[in-house]
Amino acid sequence: MSGLIGLDWGTSSLRAMLMDGGGNVLEVRSRPWGVRQLPDGGFAGALQTITASWPDVPRIASGMVGSRNGWREVPYVDLPAGQGDLAQALDRGADGNSLAIVSGLRNPRGPDVMRGEETQIIGLIAEHRDAHNATVVLPGTHSKWVTVRDGLIVDFRTMMTGELYGLLRQHSILCAGVANDAGPFDSQAFIDGVRSARDSGAAGAFSRLFAARALMLDGALSANAVPDYLSGLLIGEEFRAMRADAGTAGHAPLWLIGDAALCARYRLAAGEFEASLAPPVDDSAAAGLWCLAKAGGLVARSNSMTSTRANP
Amino acid sequence: MSGLIGLDWGTSSLRAMLMDGGGNVLEVRSRPWGVRQLPDGGFAGALQTITASWPDVPRIASGMVGSRNGWREVPYVDLPAGQGDLAQALDRGADGNSLAIVSGLRNPRGPDVMRGEETQIIGLIAEHRDAHNATVVLPGTHSKWVTVRDGLIVDFRTMMTGELYGLLRQHSILCAGVANDAGPFDSQAFIDGVRSARDSGAAGAFSRLFAARALMLDGALSANAVPDYLSGLLIGEEFRAMRADAGTAGHAPLWLIGDAALCARYRLAAGEFEASLAPPVDDSAAAGLWCLAKAGGLVARSNSMTSTRANP
Repeated sequence: MSGLIGLDWGTSSLRAMLMDGGGNVLEVRSRPWGVRQLPDGGFAGALQTITASWPDVPRIASGMVGSRNGWREVPYVDLPAGQGDLAQALDRGADGNSLAIVSGLRNPRGPDVMRGEETQIIGLIAEHRDAHNATVVLPGTHSKWVTVRDGLIVDFRTMMTGELYGLLRQHSILCAGVANDAGPFDSQAFIDGVRSARDSGAAGAFSRLFAARALMLDGALSANAVPDYLSGLLIGEEFRAMRADAGTAGHAPLWLIGDAALCARYRLAAGEFEASLAPPVDDSAAAGLWCLAKAGGLVARSNSMTSTRANP
Repeated sequence: MSGLIGLDWGTSSLRAMLMDGGGNVLEVRSRPWGVRQLPDGGFAGALQTITASWPDVPRIASGMVGSRNGWREVPYVDLPAGQGDLAQALDRGADGNSLAIVSGLRNPRGPDVMRGEETQIIGLIAEHRDAHNATVVLPGTHSKWVTVRDGLIVDFRTMMTGELYGLLRQHSILCAGVANDAGPFDSQAFIDGVRSARDSGAAGAFSRLFAARALMLDGALSANAVPDYLSGLLIGEEFRAMRADAGTAGHAPLWLIGDAALCARYRLAAGEFEASLAPPVDDSAAAGLWCLAKAGGLVARSNSMTSTRANP
């Protein structure tokens, strides 16, 4: 039996994808078993349980599973880096066939680091020739803005947008008295926040943060609209800051990879910055894991992503 | 008996100052009775207890006591504003003599608001002729950068530095695993943070925030040094952003008013921005309350700040 099991193993969740010998995903399983909340049996137990009844094929993982607090720490690969560099740096583990782990990437400029996103980008590049020279945005707790040139990852920046939003939403004076369930998405408040960030100039959106409170006291912003206003302000700040950052700006169109609802917010924000966008990409982790497994010799190189059926 | 009782009544604390008929402070009492943590008896009880045994002289308060969640909401006065405008807007209360409350200020640009800091600035202006054309910085949970021209407050900005620092220190991934008591002040880590903010250019320091984690993973920053690095990054961001903000920048020297240890950090940061500083001012609330009481006719206008003894 040929094929591959790919694992996207992050801080808060574990996703396992069974692929056939052509890289086509046959089945996906998800569990809340991030590296910080493992079940009994730890990493090995989680892997065994989530792959139960699946065939005995090579296994490869990316994400925080390779971090200092993960299963095995796999050193970062420094930029610039592409599929070949990541395949060469694959950590195959002590016994050689239990689980290969993809290394993360380190940007000496910053410095900055990522684990997991590099695999999504490798998958994107493999599937979209237009993305070989692009800016790729992966929104989330720690959003990544990644510059790709000639198919190589040459620069990236992390913006802690999701984490900062969560902190302000849960703990700050700005959201004091706002209901936990503040109601449906308020697109006007969101857009107002994006515009405030955009128009903050070089001073930046954090010089406008307290305006959320002043606007509420003025009656110009209802209490329940504050969270979406803040979401717009912080996402707008990503666009403003990354445009101002020489290394990251300038490669149109932007490619967005991630959760559909979150990407929809980024699409709204992009409109306010007149940024052109490539078609949305929901997830490219499976494609990335397949490419790296193939380039690293874990699966036979002769197999192609586009074949519908591999050799039995 | 002439004289004045001045109250600096904020979110988390209440400070009462007994002044003689010349505005000289005779006694100071402090209690943790901010507007959100009042003792039994509420506002009236707190006032009665903290002024117990003091003479029956006019009383004036500034700060969050005049906010929507305070004793009485006193409308903001819009910029530009000076001593005369604030004195005219004094809220003398329903019975006319229980407690006068100073209004806060509202900056239509932003919008932005303050309550309490305006009184400190009025006090500073009264005591220092050099501060009639100046930038005044009041560090804290919500730091204020205030532009004074010809003795009028013409512009200000709030930076939520203290609150953001607290959120990142207590709840964020950046300080995960850092001891609550991380040891003595690490001035080198602080300066490194300030420089990172300064050198972030128009992208701003929040595009460098995650570097704290990357530096720690690199071994270039010890875990216990992360809090002071973050403190430097956020305070440095104040200087960077306020320099980039057209309305706030440009009036040298900077006047710092506030807690001595916190102001010492701002003085370090100012050095990295080559900003010249006026002599430190620990507190100017009493002087400001005295000026506003005098200008508002609560105490006799003939009394001078510099007289050592008022009429009996």
